[in-house]
Amino acid sequence: MAFAELAVRIADVGRQCYARGWALGTSGNFSAVVSRDPLRLAITTSGVDKGLLSPGEIVEIDERGQVVAGSGKPSAEASLHVAIVRARGAGAGAVLHTHSIWSTILSDNAPESGLAIEGYEMLKGLDGVRTHDHREWLPILDNTQDWASAVPRVEAILQEQPQAHGFLIRRHGLYTWGRDLAEAKRQVEILEFLFEVMGRKRGMTWQR
Amino acid sequence: MAFAELAVRIADVGRQCYARGWALGTSGNFSAVVSRDPLRLAITTSGVDKGLLSPGEIVEIDERGQVVAGSGKPSAEASLHVAIVRARGAGAGAVLHTHSIWSTILSDNAPESGLAIEGYEMLKGLDGVRTHDHREWLPILDNTQDWASAVPRVEAILQEQPQAHGFLIRRHGLYTWGRDLAEAKRQVEILEFLFEVMGRKRGMTWQR
Amino acid sequence: MAFAELAVRIADVGRQCYARGWALGTSGNFSAVVSRDPLRLAITTSGVDKGLLSPGEIVEIDERGQVVAGSGKPSAEASLHVAIVRARGAGAGAVLHTHSIWSTILSDNAPESGLAIEGYEMLKGLDGVRTHDHREWLPILDNTQDWASAVPRVEAILQEQPQAHGFLIRRHGLYTWGRDLAEAKRQVEILEFLFEVMGRKRGMTWQR
Amino acid sequence: MAFAELAVRIADVGRQCYARGWALGTSGNFSAVVSRDPLRLAITTSGVDKGLLSPGEIVEIDERGQVVAGSGKPSAEASLHVAIVRARGAGAGAVLHTHSIWSTILSDNAPESGLAIEGYEMLKGLDGVRTHDHREWLPILDNTQDWASAVPRVEAILQEQPQAHGFLIRRHGLYTWGRDLAEAKRQVEILEFLFEVMGRKRGMTWQR
Repeated sequence: MAFAELAVRIADVGRQCYARGWALGTSGNFSAVVSRDPLRLAITTSGVDKGLLSPGEIVEIDERGQVVAGSGKPSAEASLHVAIVRARGAGAGAVLHTHSIWSTILSDNAPESGLAIEGYEMLKGLDGVRTHDHREWLPILDNTQDWASAVPRVEAILQEQPQAHGFLIRRHGLYTWGRDLAEAKRQVEILEFLFEVMGRKRGMTWQR
Repeated sequence: MAFAELAVRIADVGRQCYARGWALGTSGNFSAVVSRDPLRLAITTSGVDKGLLSPGEIVEIDERGQVVAGSGKPSAEASLHVAIVRARGAGAGAVLHTHSIWSTILSDNAPESGLAIEGYEMLKGLDGVRTHDHREWLPILDNTQDWASAVPRVEAILQEQPQAHGFLIRRHGLYTWGRDLAEAKRQVEILEFLFEVMGRKRGMTWQR
Repeated sequence: MAFAELAVRIADVGRQCYARGWALGTSGNFSAVVSRDPLRLAITTSGVDKGLLSPGEIVEIDERGQVVAGSGKPSAEASLHVAIVRARGAGAGAVLHTHSIWSTILSDNAPESGLAIEGYEMLKGLDGVRTHDHREWLPILDNTQDWASAVPRVEAILQEQPQAHGFLIRRHGLYTWGRDLAEAKRQVEILEFLFEVMGRKRGMTWQR
Repeated sequence: MAFAELAVRIADVGRQCYARGWALGTSGNFSAVVSRDPLRLAITTSGVDKGLLSPGEIVEIDERGQVVAGSGKPSAEASLHVAIVRARGAGAGAVLHTHSIWSTILSDNAPESGLAIEGYEMLKGLDGVRTHDHREWLPILDNTQDWASAVPRVEAILQEQPQAHGFLIRRHGLYTWGRDLAEAKRQVEILEFLFEVMGRKRGMTWQR
């Protein structure tokens, strides 16, 4: 799919994430692969209101994060998007990063280095999962403002956890991906649903 | 009502369920009876985005789940829809299956084989219930990925609980039905409302 | 305002309440005074989907609840609407009855015969309240299916509590009113907001 | 930007705040600077429904709160808006005041004179904040109905806390501001998001 068409679709997905409260303020960033060789990504520019996201706010970047089409500054986390599409290959034709209430809470309080989600039917919405009897392990990375330097850490985690459908950044949000934008959007919905289920359950005292 | 018209209405109901967060990802499936003799159902196809659900994503199936009109693979749970419309007769002209946050939580933590809902005015929205002084018992089935084999278990429960207006599948969601799509949609809203009331109450400590 | 115009406005308010989850299923009923002498009310008919509420689903009734214009069965709680518009006079040109999650929970667990709401700025949105330093007392009535017989009880409460801006029915919902539909809608929003604040606070453990 | 254009944009922002439940009833008031010398503000009039907010419900006032264009009574809290735009200069080209569930709850139960928010990525959406490793301190003022007299107190707090991006009024809501309406709206979203995260966390028992 050409850059112009991907930009239209990314803008659609972004506005939908905003409507659900997963990309408030200027949070969140979204990308899709334009070509693999050479690697080119369509990606949201920095600091834009996702509720008004328009195709003109999407730029095309190369593997070093340089803008090759469109105008604007790519997201500061562009290097993460590039790392993911390289590590996951065809499995990551689109990468979505959301900042939701529940991913923020769950990543904040998890004592471990990741979040296990197990036994829910909704897990079947994740790529390749065929049964609710599945244990999804989402690694949690500590937050940083220097993502360029953190790329090796992300690459290592993606390699160690080849089955992971996403990862969390502590007190920050979710990264997930899919073969295309539709699959990546589906995975955001699946994971955000499961975060809400788990977050609400952990807050319950089960009094009657 | 003809298949084409039912497909339009099923798509409407599906998009409404998605908007309320009851059919995120590709979760949920929805059907309506096209004819009783021979038995024909209009039913959602598998793996589609309910937020974009269109009549073209609804197929007509026979009692064995074979597609007789439209294209696409019917939901993997089509055998459950067929079992319900047979067991409940005219009371089940439409069957709706939703995956909500609260039905997932309540079915997960209920120690018993079902969920009792009692004493709420909202219960009067269920077919045939005339007073808030009613005790609704929703059976909870364990989840499976082999619904074809599980049909006898579902049929047994529907026979044992002739008054039940729905049932839950553990960590999975709700099945409910009505004489037509409007009634089934009303029952989804009634039951989801009551799940949320009960779920929130169970999480409360009643501090002041 | 003429019946036809009031019917349009009642339908608007009803659809808005539905959108916020305050009138799911077929719950909720809404009315406005067409004339005082003789007393005539425009009121929603029974069993209709508030998400699709249209002016054709509003009827005009007299003080005994008989339909004098339009077609359909008036709400089973029409006698409550008549009692309120009589007891409150010009202060009740419109009556709105909603079934929300939080009014259901708060009325269920309140041990007393009413709910006190005190010290919130939002209280100033109630008719005649000029400061947040106000204590609103909402009586709670036990639920019944025989509202015609319960009218004297409602009338007594309205007389005993001349300052009350509404009342709750246990495990059922809220009745409130205003000089016109806009004021009554405003009061629904104020009270539902305060119910949610109080309900959420009561469920909190204040851990950090 | 001219008054007429600002009125259109204020009305847009107001309707969006209403849709998210941050300006129910007639709560909330919103302003933007028309000119600095002489000081002129476009500001919402008192008692209007923010869900229907139209440019005709915005007036232009001078520094004493007198209406110089448009018709209607300016918000009773206009003196606060004037105090903020003076104290913050170019940093406050627009001022937004919202009444949300979570700001009401957090300001109610905070024992201290302010609310600290620390360590969340979302903080980077606040003007000038470059890292999640930031501690935002939002002063909490006690509520009053005499804002004209309270102006010196507000001015003192703004001077003592030059880094604060907003303040809370106890059991009442949030004031925040930005260089223009877009930035102020972004800050509302950032702060409301963080209030919800903190409020939900404080209510959680972390049972599994």
